[in-house]
Amino acid sequence: MTERTRIRRLPEKSVEDVGVLHAILDAARVAHVGLVDGGTPVVVPVGCARDGDRLLLHGSTGSRLFRGLADGAEVCVTVTLLDGMVLARSAFESSMHYRCAMLFGTATEVPREEKAAALRAMSEAWLPGRWDTLRPPTAKELAATTVLALPLAEWSVKVSDGPPEDPPEDLDAPVWAGVLPIVTAYGDAVPAPDLRGDPKPWTPRFS
Amino acid sequence: MTERTRIRRLPEKSVEDVGVLHAILDAARVAHVGLVDGGTPVVVPVGCARDGDRLLLHGSTGSRLFRGLADGAEVCVTVTLLDGMVLARSAFESSMHYRCAMLFGTATEVPREEKAAALRAMSEAWLPGRWDTLRPPTAKELAATTVLALPLAEWSVKVSDGPPEDPPEDLDAPVWAGVLPIVTAYGDAVPAPDLRGDPKPWTPRFS
Repeated sequence: MTERTRIRRLPEKSVEDVGVLHAILDAARVAHVGLVDGGTPVVVPVGCARDGDRLLLHGSTGSRLFRGLADGAEVCVTVTLLDGMVLARSAFESSMHYRCAMLFGTATEVPREEKAAALRAMSEAWLPGRWDTLRPPTAKELAATTVLALPLAEWSVKVSDGPPEDPPEDLDAPVWAGVLPIVTAYGDAVPAPDLRGDPKPWTPRFS
Repeated sequence: MTERTRIRRLPEKSVEDVGVLHAILDAARVAHVGLVDGGTPVVVPVGCARDGDRLLLHGSTGSRLFRGLADGAEVCVTVTLLDGMVLARSAFESSMHYRCAMLFGTATEVPREEKAAALRAMSEAWLPGRWDTLRPPTAKELAATTVLALPLAEWSVKVSDGPPEDPPEDLDAPVWAGVLPIVTAYGDAVPAPDLRGDPKPWTPRFS
């Protein structure tokens, strides 16, 4: 733990289990990447996937921010999953269920010869099984894509779960109290208007 | 538009309609707030709700980051909604549907006499109708809560939607192509173990 990963606010929600960190990153497709650009904070959403003990970030070689990241800018990468609304007997005790992972460090560019494997790992994380049904990427496509890797080295995790925690004097309030879970899933698949291939929607389990 | 809100990457996805900005913020409950803390970027998830032409951010007076924000630190607040996975005929053209709003500026603390109204606005945004069923906040609760307001002044919006855009030579690939929408909703309500009030789950429409 470092000074910047020590959780000061609601420290009882801090989690140090690396398995929880992995589960949060594995459930995410987008991370919010913060960096300092000319003295100003900038936060951009970036496609992400965990690959062992690193987080892969997907971008374009044409992106100015991505070039800054590849050049060794310090980053804070935050992944937040909103799991539910906590309805207490008072507004003050009402809150949200969430799982949040925050990573600090410097990302490095995945070298050319490992790029296809890294892209495959991201595709498998997002759409398991899809990669092998597609043609391999061309050299030109690989050259136009940047994959950055951030080691899972300096991180913190905060998890809010459990029932509402009302003080005894509020328990007789005549309202319902509890948790409304927030669930995310795939809706009905929308075929491409120019679909000529397999007419059966390819829908993996949402994960 | 300022230099930092000009969208350089995929500018065709840039949207300047303030109605789209409002819709994105209205669909969000959590924003990722980036600031510079001792030279380091930090990105934290913060409960948010739009109130007219400002974004309200909810925090604790005990939070060091929130005190920094209230003291006038420059922030970048990003809200991202992930709407779907775009399955093209190649990995390279595959992508995601998203709506992303990025706000820059300096937040100010909502003054004491307006705090209850601001908290009510946030509650109404998240759980419409709930506030009036609860007891009013106490003076002590109000004092323990900070609400910050960021004007919707310097912002950019980027929207990715539409079908996969494969080059003609890929259209005959034997795979399904299209969009898998990602939908978010409330799951089954979980009553508090010590529920004594209304036994009927209070479930508003998810918005």
